[in-house]
Amino acid sequence: MSEKITSRSKDFSKWYLDIVMQAKLADYGPVKGTMVIRPYAYSMWEKIQSELDRRFKETGVENAYFPLFIPESYIKKEAQHVEGFSPELAVVTIGGGEKLEEPVIVRPTSETIINAFFSKWIQSYRDLPLLINQWCNVVRWEMRTRPFIRTSEFLWQEGHTAHETEEEAETKTLQMLDIYRKFAEEFLAIPVIFGKKTESQKFAGAVSTYAIEALMQDNKALQAGTSHNLGQNFAKAFEITYQDRDKKQVYVWQTSWGVSTRLIGALILAHGDDVGLRLPPTVAPIQVVIIPIYKKNAEQERKRVLDACKLIEKSLQKSFRIKIDDSEQATPGFKFNEWEMMGVPVRIELGPRDLDKNVCIAVRRDTGEKSPISIDTVSNSIRDLLSQIQANLLKQAYDRVRENSCQLDKYDDFKEIIDKKGGLISSHWCGDKDCEAKIQDETKATIRVIPLDQKNETGKCIRCGNKSTGRVIFAKAY
Amino acid sequence: MSEKITSRSKDFSKWYLDIVMQAKLADYGPVKGTMVIRPYAYSMWEKIQSELDRRFKETGVENAYFPLFIPESYIKKEAQHVEGFSPELAVVTIGGGEKLEEPVIVRPTSETIINAFFSKWIQSYRDLPLLINQWCNVVRWEMRTRPFIRTSEFLWQEGHTAHETEEEAETKTLQMLDIYRKFAEEFLAIPVIFGKKTESQKFAGAVSTYAIEALMQDNKALQAGTSHNLGQNFAKAFEITYQDRDKKQVYVWQTSWGVSTRLIGALILAHGDDVGLRLPPTVAPIQVVIIPIYKKNAEQERKRVLDACKLIEKSLQKSFRIKIDDSEQATPGFKFNEWEMMGVPVRIELGPRDLDKNVCIAVRRDTGEKSPISIDTVSNSIRDLLSQIQANLLKQAYDRVRENSCQLDKYDDFKEIIDKKGGLISSHWCGDKDCEAKIQDETKATIRVIPLDQKNETGKCIRCGNKSTGRVIFAKAY
Repeated sequence: MSEKITSRSKDFSKWYLDIVMQAKLADYGPVKGTMVIRPYAYSMWEKIQSELDRRFKETGVENAYFPLFIPESYIKKEAQHVEGFSPELAVVTIGGGEKLEEPVIVRPTSETIINAFFSKWIQSYRDLPLLINQWCNVVRWEMRTRPFIRTSEFLWQEGHTAHETEEEAETKTLQMLDIYRKFAEEFLAIPVIFGKKTESQKFAGAVSTYAIEALMQDNKALQAGTSHNLGQNFAKAFEITYQDRDKKQVYVWQTSWGVSTRLIGALILAHGDDVGLRLPPTVAPIQVVIIPIYKKNAEQERKRVLDACKLIEKSLQKSFRIKIDDSEQATPGFKFNEWEMMGVPVRIELGPRDLDKNVCIAVRRDTGEKSPISIDTVSNSIRDLLSQIQANLLKQAYDRVRENSCQLDKYDDFKEIIDKKGGLISSHWCGDKDCEAKIQDETKATIRVIPLDQKNETGKCIRCGNKSTGRVIFAKAY
Repeated sequence: MSEKITSRSKDFSKWYLDIVMQAKLADYGPVKGTMVIRPYAYSMWEKIQSELDRRFKETGVENAYFPLFIPESYIKKEAQHVEGFSPELAVVTIGGGEKLEEPVIVRPTSETIINAFFSKWIQSYRDLPLLINQWCNVVRWEMRTRPFIRTSEFLWQEGHTAHETEEEAETKTLQMLDIYRKFAEEFLAIPVIFGKKTESQKFAGAVSTYAIEALMQDNKALQAGTSHNLGQNFAKAFEITYQDRDKKQVYVWQTSWGVSTRLIGALILAHGDDVGLRLPPTVAPIQVVIIPIYKKNAEQERKRVLDACKLIEKSLQKSFRIKIDDSEQATPGFKFNEWEMMGVPVRIELGPRDLDKNVCIAVRRDTGEKSPISIDTVSNSIRDLLSQIQANLLKQAYDRVRENSCQLDKYDDFKEIIDKKGGLISSHWCGDKDCEAKIQDETKATIRVIPLDQKNETGKCIRCGNKSTGRVIFAKAY
């Protein structure tokens, strides 16, 4: 299998697509920009959903479901919002065989329709905070597509909240950003930088946007999650007012935040190698694959080995996601390659000689390390191994990010590093959006975030030399 | 609260809508026929999803996700399919600001797009059976809408499978029907009849359709789930062939099956009473509500009662979904009404005098029965109560269905019963579709199912008197 995968050094984009196709993660849909999420990748999404959902609910968020179809007039109510989303909209003009009086938008995001209901549901400060999330599909028409990373339709969650005070909304915005950051690191083993977006990069309709960004192996940054402080922009557009504790009618303060199936792309781009996927155990559809080894035409040996594999499966299946690959069509060598390509964290090999010693051989996908483990204590050994693999994938990713991050003060160095190497570059910026745009024109680098823990440091803008009060993070991005 | 709910005998439709609105289950969306599923109802849907998903996966089904957008040409490939769905389609004609060359259909169901991929993925008998399910939204343009029961957009699961043989496909069709039947009874406490649909009632594109049907309290039947044997209709339309064990290229045999958010409507219509919802414990977002009772302005008493409530909550929350309603705005009586309307299976009342005796009062929503239970063994008592409530709701529903089912052999009786009483009527039918249509014209009753366990019994068609070999089940339906 692995010979079908282009190496990263040869063609990184092709390497990515090869993994997507060979590991049966996705297929292109017939309508431009759409994709099919195949079972192996969908299973990862289920694990992502279930873990995030648990973390959201711990903070008091409840799930709901709002309509896919939004009247065109709703989208137009918030000026920046309509400007930002207009070029990406899919529009239904025919329903039930008839031309519609008002065209209907297929949701690109749900601020407008959700806030129309918030204005109905929120009457008093007692109705606040209102903390709602939905898991759904959204559509943003795309011409340049890449499975998981950029598609016309994608799956995501979108949280929408309403609060009494500005401070409370800001706190919520940052709390959700922190959930995303911890989730990326703890669950996906992907370290992220996090901070505020510049004015030109913020969400259409937000007062401020915060993001987590992850550095991929091609040294480009991937925006992996965003959390928006919407201020009162949508509250004013949709008349969301409530009677406050002093019996005055006032507008609510709001947030919205989301992550998408793009996270599956991030897993590939952060952890994969030239052999294929390398999946963190948390998200792996199969955590351990057991491969029986026996001579051809040796029925008794085959039975003995298979029986032992089944016993191992039995002792593992309560705690782990296990598969025995006992197909007769493929050799063990072929199976090793196949399951390495699929990124299964641990392979257990078991042959008659191992069985004589009451051991099996555990092989780590992350390091290739082989070690005999006693069959009697296989469950404990696997638990240890999986937690080592989870930690090691995170560490490797951290090390890679550290090696590819630097602090630069000269624009020539900046241009050269961005062009030749990429990575995360911490530099001073004057705060002017024209200067920001020129840096992008000249280098393709954008400001990924203004770090939340930005140090107050006087310096000169990397490009124009004007005064700056702190460093921001630049990178080329997806 | 309950005075806001119209009684069933006064106006059944209004009673239903009153519950939907008062219990905050749904709201009408701005685009005709759409609805918002509010958190309380969405929580029921999550429980339905999680239980069904588990039952599907036990049979080897895997989840995936296919695009929302289907090219118009795909829909047209299966003749019956396009004929059946054409009047209900929502069509996207503009994408990314431009008129599309080929209009795009918002999926009404996914047979066409899924089978386009099956034809790519299935090469050999080794790829079979292929067992795929997806949880998603679908759109069927509707003018007459009723929340949960009939809406333009709804949430559902759709299973799609491909098999080597006709028998295997038929077995799968019936296996999924059986899963739906057991799920309805065991989880939703809703007894169903089940069987085959007549030719005129089957799914557009199927060889045969099977359904579960539940009798609601207005004595109308609600189709609650369907399972289709698609034969080779879609296999031929989408060229899904494989190399069989004899190395011949042959078409696969297929099934599809689905249930939707309509099940939430079924829960209301089957179990609700004039006070509001009555939810089976399995599906109840809150299984036990604890209501502290204390005198106004008696701070010490209040603290003592609340502390005890919190201890009870603590001993229950590991195993059950619990809420303490300690709000100060409402009286205990108001809270009783409110949580009865919301259908919470058990209410625990706790006041100082109960506390003196180390008991709390448990009140069953299904029967209104009150009983003191010892605080020391509250968890066991609640477990017993919830399982009694689950069983009793099913029994009550069974009894109701039995009382409203009959066997009739005279058309005059048939017409009178259908008109005055409704319910399920077992009668002979000649098998002719014109006769079936005339019965519907004359009585509004349709054949809900031809029972799977239909007895071979010679008789005369209820309407035309022609020969019949068995009874079918008639009812007025949603």
